[in-house]
Amino acid sequence: MGIIVQKFGGTSVADPQKIHNVAKAVIKEKNNGNDVVVVVSAMGHTTDYLIKLAKEITNNPDSREMDMLLSTGEQVSIALLTMAIQSNGYKAVSMNGQQVGIITECIHSKARIVDIKTDKLNKYLKEGKIIVVAGFQGVTPDGEITTLGRGGSDTSAVAIAAALKADRCDIYTDVEGVYATDPRIVPNVQKADVISYEEMLELARVGANVLHPRSVETAKQFNVPLRVRSSFKLDNLGTLIIGVDNMEIYKPVAGVAADCSQVRILISSLPDIPGTAAKVFGALAKHNISVDMIIQSLAIDGKNSIAFTVDAQDLDDALKILDSEKDHIQSGNILTDKDIAKVSIVGAGMVDRPGIAADMFKALAEKNINIKMISTSEIKISCLVEKQNANDAIKVLCKEFGLESKEIAVVKGDLPNI
Amino acid sequence: MGIIVQKFGGTSVADPQKIHNVAKAVIKEKNNGNDVVVVVSAMGHTTDYLIKLAKEITNNPDSREMDMLLSTGEQVSIALLTMAIQSNGYKAVSMNGQQVGIITECIHSKARIVDIKTDKLNKYLKEGKIIVVAGFQGVTPDGEITTLGRGGSDTSAVAIAAALKADRCDIYTDVEGVYATDPRIVPNVQKADVISYEEMLELARVGANVLHPRSVETAKQFNVPLRVRSSFKLDNLGTLIIGVDNMEIYKPVAGVAADCSQVRILISSLPDIPGTAAKVFGALAKHNISVDMIIQSLAIDGKNSIAFTVDAQDLDDALKILDSEKDHIQSGNILTDKDIAKVSIVGAGMVDRPGIAADMFKALAEKNINIKMISTSEIKISCLVEKQNANDAIKVLCKEFGLESKEIAVVKGDLPNI
Repeated sequence: MGIIVQKFGGTSVADPQKIHNVAKAVIKEKNNGNDVVVVVSAMGHTTDYLIKLAKEITNNPDSREMDMLLSTGEQVSIALLTMAIQSNGYKAVSMNGQQVGIITECIHSKARIVDIKTDKLNKYLKEGKIIVVAGFQGVTPDGEITTLGRGGSDTSAVAIAAALKADRCDIYTDVEGVYATDPRIVPNVQKADVISYEEMLELARVGANVLHPRSVETAKQFNVPLRVRSSFKLDNLGTLIIGVDNMEIYKPVAGVAADCSQVRILISSLPDIPGTAAKVFGALAKHNISVDMIIQSLAIDGKNSIAFTVDAQDLDDALKILDSEKDHIQSGNILTDKDIAKVSIVGAGMVDRPGIAADMFKALAEKNINIKMISTSEIKISCLVEKQNANDAIKVLCKEFGLESKEIAVVKGDLPNI
Repeated sequence: MGIIVQKFGGTSVADPQKIHNVAKAVIKEKNNGNDVVVVVSAMGHTTDYLIKLAKEITNNPDSREMDMLLSTGEQVSIALLTMAIQSNGYKAVSMNGQQVGIITECIHSKARIVDIKTDKLNKYLKEGKIIVVAGFQGVTPDGEITTLGRGGSDTSAVAIAAALKADRCDIYTDVEGVYATDPRIVPNVQKADVISYEEMLELARVGANVLHPRSVETAKQFNVPLRVRSSFKLDNLGTLIIGVDNMEIYKPVAGVAADCSQVRILISSLPDIPGTAAKVFGALAKHNISVDMIIQSLAIDGKNSIAFTVDAQDLDDALKILDSEKDHIQSGNILTDKDIAKVSIVGAGMVDRPGIAADMFKALAEKNINIKMISTSEIKISCLVEKQNANDAIKVLCKEFGLESKEIAVVKGDLPNI
């Protein structure tokens, strides 16, 4: 009927028995009449083991050699999965990144895919073979082995699906679809059946571990329908992720997310002159510190203040940088606030429906939850609240936007004990 | 000064500490002013582990997928050794079989090398880099990964040395050179300083585990000087293996070898007509059973008998085949003799010196050792004796040919208890 690309992560192929289970899922799709390309990660803790070996050799291993080392993990998986498929009487063939021609930039340990050759893939598919491809790895035009970095195997699968113009890319994982909430906050959590790329991206950025944003971005770019589904419940269809244009109906708010891993920094008494914000954020950017929410207050008496949030683990570095640039920035006091949570509502439907933000603020106010900062994007509204209010905020927002039985609440960082 | 190819086996790179030791040996050669290419095997028991994994998937794994699987073992080693060399401040780069261009036939699990590309190797050497190459593996012109089978890594090293016109190929191992004897038979055993390819081949065929005959044959073909030396005693020069033409002097007999792993089969009452021997050995060859010594007795009354030796583990199969072909061969009784040992003297000097065979037979006779069969080649004379006489035969032959303090006695199979 069509071409289906399947992707299985390291836990799905952690031992020979699990590899046989994956073979069953692959064969099931083949028996549906589809051409099947399977992308797999390294078995279980293989990558961790290889990294440990390298660290025993040297504290500072060369990134080219790390790629040479780590790419073996996926090569073991593809050989074993291919054997398992063949042992069921199906034709199958394994291919590493070099053999497929997954062409990347020459940036070791975090290369980006620039091209995927399809001639050999199409040749094997025409021969009726199931193709098992090593995820996470590629090759430069010069034949150097590269790896794709975090989210690499998902990205390999989506990119191969795009190159083959596949009908769908199924990401098999240990959850049943796109939904992640702390069951202490919202009981009876259910998964979404359909969600847009954009919503998934916003949810992923605040902490959904289901899919790396990079793979969702690639799927969005090439309009590859993605399905997140369970390796253990093959009959479960999981969550379909598609373009907004392809969605027939959607709620204005698809999910509620909380991020408790940020801290707020407030710089007061800044001169109200052009270039001040540029100095502050330029200094942080130079040291690779990502800033999330930013608010600049209205100027009073020629003085200004700027508040912004950074990841908690970047706090010490950020303070050091701000201190060393103090004279240059002409900053006054620097205050930090660690007891914060960013609560966001996400939904592709917001763009057409005015009043969603007002509804959010009203719902929080009715629960006496104070809003410290606000930021908005096309499909997301985020409010910074006190960390102790995060649970209540999620609950009231789920209720406000009718998500109680179908909510997507994504939590990053540790929520306060209830 | 020149190009040296070094080869280290799996036990030499079994763990990070041992890999650092190998790095020292590599750097020592680099510091001698040489360009260095290092060929390594998979770490310790990695290959066994991977084979076990495959067997847990299926009893009958596809040989292409086995090659895909096993070739990862060497790729791990090259990455780690390269890191170890770099951590000492030396420039190094790893290359797998595909990256070098070790081109082989497309016969999985036992491919033969047909070509080795030298452009990338020479480029890296010109840049002053130590090159670490994965042994045991190659690639077909179509990009299929192959492995070279038994003795593969030694063969990789020798073939690379030949392609680069290297000055020498050093095979590092856990022995100090070419010599292997049971110390219970000849005490104070010493290694040979120099030995010819031909002598090494004859000794290897009867059981020296030091070097696989295939690598010696390749070295002989391309006249690559080989040095077998210890990974643990880097100052020890080991044994140099070179062409006879390059040897200044040599003794007529370089070594004495005993092979206790064979059994003798005697077929009596065969018709004395052309084609009988062809029928017998054709049937065995068709089932891949190698026959070593062969003697056909003189015909009496139009009947003949043929005696030959096979490896003990092939005995049952050989008897089955001979039984099933009984009518075709028109054979009479089939007798077997398991208590035999093949004692050989080996020496490139024999060819010019008549009387060596007679000296051998006389020495054995003086010890009352009966000779059951004899076979000869250009540089080897082998006598089949009763197994219980093997130790005495080795001793008396070492004495006869002045090898007592410099003997090379190679023993295969279990010698009888003394």
